[in-house]
Amino acid sequence: MADIRVQSLQQPVDVSEYLFRRLHEIGDRSVHGVPGDYNLVALDYLSDCGLQWVGSVNELNAAYAADGYARVNRIEALITTFGVGELSAINGVAGAFSEHIPVVHIVGCPSTASKRNCMLLHHTLGNGDFNVFANMSAQISYAMAKLSSPSEIADQIDHALRQCWIQSRPVYITLPTDMVQAKIKGSRLKQPIDLAAPANDPEKEVDACAIRHRVLPEVHSLMDKSSLTMFVTPMGEGAIDEIHGNFGGGYAEAGSHPLEVKDRVESSDLIITIGALKSDFNTTGFSYRTLQLKSIDLHSDHCVVRYSTYPEVSMKGVLQKLSEFLKDDDIVVTETGTANFGIWDTKFSKRVTAFSQILWGSIGWSVGACQGAALAAMDNGADRRIILFVGDGSFQLTAQEVSTMIRHGLSPTMYVSCAPIHRKSLLVGCRDVNSATFLSYATKALPLRDFELYMPKKDAPRALMMTAEASAKTNAQTE
Amino acid sequence: MADIRVQSLQQPVDVSEYLFRRLHEIGDRSVHGVPGDYNLVALDYLSDCGLQWVGSVNELNAAYAADGYARVNRIEALITTFGVGELSAINGVAGAFSEHIPVVHIVGCPSTASKRNCMLLHHTLGNGDFNVFANMSAQISYAMAKLSSPSEIADQIDHALRQCWIQSRPVYITLPTDMVQAKIKGSRLKQPIDLAAPANDPEKEVDACAIRHRVLPEVHSLMDKSSLTMFVTPMGEGAIDEIHGNFGGGYAEAGSHPLEVKDRVESSDLIITIGALKSDFNTTGFSYRTLQLKSIDLHSDHCVVRYSTYPEVSMKGVLQKLSEFLKDDDIVVTETGTANFGIWDTKFSKRVTAFSQILWGSIGWSVGACQGAALAAMDNGADRRIILFVGDGSFQLTAQEVSTMIRHGLSPTMYVSCAPIHRKSLLVGCRDVNSATFLSYATKALPLRDFELYMPKKDAPRALMMTAEASAKTNAQTE
Repeated sequence: MADIRVQSLQQPVDVSEYLFRRLHEIGDRSVHGVPGDYNLVALDYLSDCGLQWVGSVNELNAAYAADGYARVNRIEALITTFGVGELSAINGVAGAFSEHIPVVHIVGCPSTASKRNCMLLHHTLGNGDFNVFANMSAQISYAMAKLSSPSEIADQIDHALRQCWIQSRPVYITLPTDMVQAKIKGSRLKQPIDLAAPANDPEKEVDACAIRHRVLPEVHSLMDKSSLTMFVTPMGEGAIDEIHGNFGGGYAEAGSHPLEVKDRVESSDLIITIGALKSDFNTTGFSYRTLQLKSIDLHSDHCVVRYSTYPEVSMKGVLQKLSEFLKDDDIVVTETGTANFGIWDTKFSKRVTAFSQILWGSIGWSVGACQGAALAAMDNGADRRIILFVGDGSFQLTAQEVSTMIRHGLSPTMYVSCAPIHRKSLLVGCRDVNSATFLSYATKALPLRDFELYMPKKDAPRALMMTAEASAKTNAQTE
Repeated sequence: MADIRVQSLQQPVDVSEYLFRRLHEIGDRSVHGVPGDYNLVALDYLSDCGLQWVGSVNELNAAYAADGYARVNRIEALITTFGVGELSAINGVAGAFSEHIPVVHIVGCPSTASKRNCMLLHHTLGNGDFNVFANMSAQISYAMAKLSSPSEIADQIDHALRQCWIQSRPVYITLPTDMVQAKIKGSRLKQPIDLAAPANDPEKEVDACAIRHRVLPEVHSLMDKSSLTMFVTPMGEGAIDEIHGNFGGGYAEAGSHPLEVKDRVESSDLIITIGALKSDFNTTGFSYRTLQLKSIDLHSDHCVVRYSTYPEVSMKGVLQKLSEFLKDDDIVVTETGTANFGIWDTKFSKRVTAFSQILWGSIGWSVGACQGAALAAMDNGADRRIILFVGDGSFQLTAQEVSTMIRHGLSPTMYVSCAPIHRKSLLVGCRDVNSATFLSYATKALPLRDFELYMPKKDAPRALMMTAEASAKTNAQTE
C-alpha cells in the first residue's frame, strides 16, 4: 500500500492525460468534437495520448460522427464546450442514447472557481446557474461524472467509461478548465478498467439488441448450430448472414419481405426475439401481431418469457462460448426515411454491416455517421467500403461534414437521391431548384469517389408508403 | 354571457388556427422551422392565417433565424418536431433565453393517446417517457404550455404568448397531433391578447436591457432632454445614436474606445446603467471597475440603487411618455468572436441597428440570424440593408442557411473573413485549403449581392486579443 502511494506520487499525471489514456486503452483512436475556449487546453493532450483530433464543422455533425464511429469501433469520445457546444450536440447524443450507442460526451466547462462564484460568463444563461446543461444531459446519459475534486477524478472517469462500455449508452463528463491540468495518481493507469459484464445466473442466460450489444457472433453460432429459421427486422438489417440456409427473410408485419414471411412468423409455435425494439418505424407502424404468449424476448438487460420478465438476465453469457465473428466487409449507412425504407427490400451480401437510426430517426444523421464510420474503419486498418444512402433533404442538414471527410482523406461512396417523391414534406422541404443547384455545386466541389443523384419521381419505397400510412393513423388516433 | 357561448359554438376554430391567428395578431408574419411528421398537419394552417412558412435547412439554423427575426420584428415562432427536431434547435433557443429574445417554440408531438399508452414511437428514447424533452426545454423557457385539453388551450396559448412578449424570453408550446384540429371557442379571438406590462409604482420607475426590452425610444428621449453623457457597451453597440452630442463612446473597461472613456466613466460621481449585462465578453473579461456605491442599475425586471435591489420595478413605465422611435436603416449582424470584437472600434452611423449574441456566443448564430433579420425587414415592408460580418469558421457551421435566403429572395450583404488569425482555434479549425475551397465554391454558387473574403494574417482586433487574454486568466484561476 505504501509502495503504491510512493509510485503514484512519483508519477502523477494530468487529468486530461488520464482521461485520454483510458480512452485509448479501450480502443478509441480518433476523437470527434469542436474546439471552444473551455476545452482548448485539454485538446492539446490528445496527440500525446495516441488520439487523433477530428474537428467537425459543427457539434451536431460531430455527435453524429461519434455515433457512427462507435458503431464500428465500439466506443467514441465527443468533446464539446460548455452551453453552446454541448447543446448543439445534444440531439446527436440523445440519438445515441435511444439507439444504444456508447458515446463518451466530454464537455469543457468554466473553472470550478467561476462556478462557485456564479460569474456572468459567456455561454451561460446569465443567471449564475451552471448546472442547467448538465441537468439536460442527465436525461440522456447513463452516467454523469462532474470532475471537480482531483482525489475522486480517477474513480469517476473509470466508472463512467465502464458504464458507457457495458451499457452501450452515452455518458457525460464535465471537465472544468482548472481540472484539465490538475494532478492525479498515474500508477492507476497500470491497471486496466474492468470492462467485464456482470456475471449472469447460467441457468437463465440468453440475450439481445444484438448488434449494439455485440452479440452478433453468438447469434451466428446459434444459426449454424440450430435448425431455427432466422428473420431480421428493419433495425437489424444487415446484422445476420442473409445467404445462410436458415435465413428466412425480413419481418416487419405488413411490410415483410417476401410477404409470406409475415404468415410464417406469426403462425410459429414459439418466437425467440433477439434484441427486438418494437418501435413504430421498425414494425411498419406497430402492426406486430406476434402473440406474447408464444414469445421469448431477449434483451440486453432483461429477458421476457411469455408474460414473465427476468430483469437481471443479459444475453452475453450463454452465447459467448460459441462464436464466429462477422468478417469485415462493406458498411452500409442509410438515412432514416426514404433511403432506409427503400433498403428493406434489399438482400445484403454476406458479412455486410448496415447502420441506420430507425428509433431516433434524426434527419441528417447519416452524413455525420458515415464520416465517423469511415474513420473508424480506417483507424482499424480495415479496407472496408463505406456506402451512404441519403436523400437530398437529409443531406442538406449536415452537408458540411463532407469537408471533414476530405480533410481526413476519407472517400465513402455516397448516393444522394434528388427527385421529388410522393410525400415531399417527409423530407426537409428543399425540393426545389435552389436545392438542386446547391447540391450540384457541391458535387462538383467535392472529390468523392462516387456521388450520384437518382430516384424517379413518385418512386417511394413500398415500406415507406405503408409506414407513412400507419403513422398518419397513429398520429390521428384519440384513444 | 349566454350570447358569447352561442357565438363561440357558432364559430369553433381548430387549435392550430387559434394559435396562428394569435401569432399574426401580435405581429408575426413568417414562421421558421423544419417539417416533421408530428407537425405536418399543423403547418397546413399557416397560410390561411396570414403566416408564411420558412422551412430552414435544419432546426438549429431555424432557431437562429427565429432569433434574428424576433430582434427585428419583436416576436417570432419556431416550429419543430418532437425529440430530434426540438433538441437540434435547443441551443438556438437557449441563446434566445440567455439574450432575452422572444421566441415562441412550438413542438409538434405524438398524440396524447400515444403518450398515455407510452408507445415505442420513433423520436423517443424507447423508454416510454414522453416528458424528457419538455423537461429539458423548461430550463430555457419562461413559460410552458402543454396542450392536451381543448377547454384549457386558449388560456394556455394566450398566457404563453403574453409571457413571451412581456418577458422577452422564449416560451415552449407542445402541440400533440390529436390537438392540431381539436375545436375550441373562436369568439375569443375577437378580444386581443393583453400585452401591457404590469403597472409600476410611478415613484420608482426606471429601466433597462434597453434594446431587447424595447426602451430605445425612451433612452433617446433621456439623451435629448438631459445633459447626461451616454456610453455604450459592446452588447449595446448600435443601440443609441452615436453622433448625438451627448454620446461619449464605447465603454468596456480596458477595451474602451477611445481609451479615455474608461477614465471618464470610472471617475464619474454617479453612473446610471440601462440594461447592462456585466458578462465577460461584454466587459473585456470582467474588468468592470465601476463602484456599485455610485451606481444605479436599471434592468427589465428590477432596479439596483447602490446596494439596494428593487425587484418589482421595470423601466418601461417612466420613460414611456417620452419617445422618438429609432428610424429604420441598416441592420448589422455580427458573429461572436473576431467579427464582433472587430466591430467595437467602429463608429456607427445614425439609426443603425446592430445585433450580436455576446452573452450566449454560439458560433454560427449570425448566418441564421441574418436570414431571419432580413426576412423580418422584408415582412415589415422596410427597405433596410442587412449586413453580416462573420468568419469562415463560423460561417461553415450554418452555411446551408444561405439556400433559405435565396429561396426567399433575400440578399443580405455578407462579409466572410477567410485568413488565419493569431489564435486560430478560437474559430472552428477549418482554416485549411479545403475550407477555403468549400467557401470559394459556395461564393460562386450563390447569387448574393456581395460576398467578400478579407482579413490580413494575424490582424486580430484589439478587443479580441484583450478579451482572449482575460478569458485565459479566468479559465486558469482556481480561487
